[in-house]
Amino acid sequence: MSKQEIVLGTGSGCCTPISEAALDPVAAADGAAVFKALADPIRLRLMSIIASAGGELCVCDITPQFEVSGPTISHHLRVLREAGLVDCERRGTWVYYWPIPERLRWIASLLAAPEPVAAS
Amino acid sequence: MSKQEIVLGTGSGCCTPISEAALDPVAAADGAAVFKALADPIRLRLMSIIASAGGELCVCDITPQFEVSGPTISHHLRVLREAGLVDCERRGTWVYYWPIPERLRWIASLLAAPEPVAAS
Repeated sequence: MSKQEIVLGTGSGCCTPISEAALDPVAAADGAAVFKALADPIRLRLMSIIASAGGELCVCDITPQFEVSGPTISHHLRVLREAGLVDCERRGTWVYYWPIPERLRWIASLLAAPEPVAAS
Repeated sequence: MSKQEIVLGTGSGCCTPISEAALDPVAAADGAAVFKALADPIRLRLMSIIASAGGELCVCDITPQFEVSGPTISHHLRVLREAGLVDCERRGTWVYYWPIPERLRWIASLLAAPEPVAAS
């Protein structure tokens, strides 16, 4: 859908958490690119709407939930797609979006912190 | 350390994942602010160095790991601190940093995706 699409990481949900090892510059650039996609309130809300939908979602059902224009929503959806967090398919008039759970797991695992030590 | 310090969320690691429920605009703004702090390769690497250190870390041991100036590192550390991801204390000449694991857990839990369904 975009020539600027970025292919990042493996999305396998199996990276070393930053609480266990320092990132090298390449991995840091990969991770930062995904966080940048989530670093906007509209995009993070869009991501949560798509991720919690339980399936694919028509853009026609997404846009009315925001007070910004359709083209603005389309721009933000494109950023999420280029970061590998969602994918989409056009069918007739509308575009349908769905989340990439592996990608969410990957970026969540990067942030995993050790559990608190229970008092003995 | 900064008048712009932001107090976000509870850091309790107990928010509803975006894969389970759409965020309201306020929660989305909170989360996006933390992701913005991590959306820079230098800051994400800094965060990983501090989070994986196993304790507090002198800024004098952090700066030599980067090819940018001390003031640039100080700026990025301030952004991480304002996002609630690290804290610090000055002792004599140097400032010492440590991670806030509860904050990492909070932001990680926001991204938690359902585990893949095993084939039966």
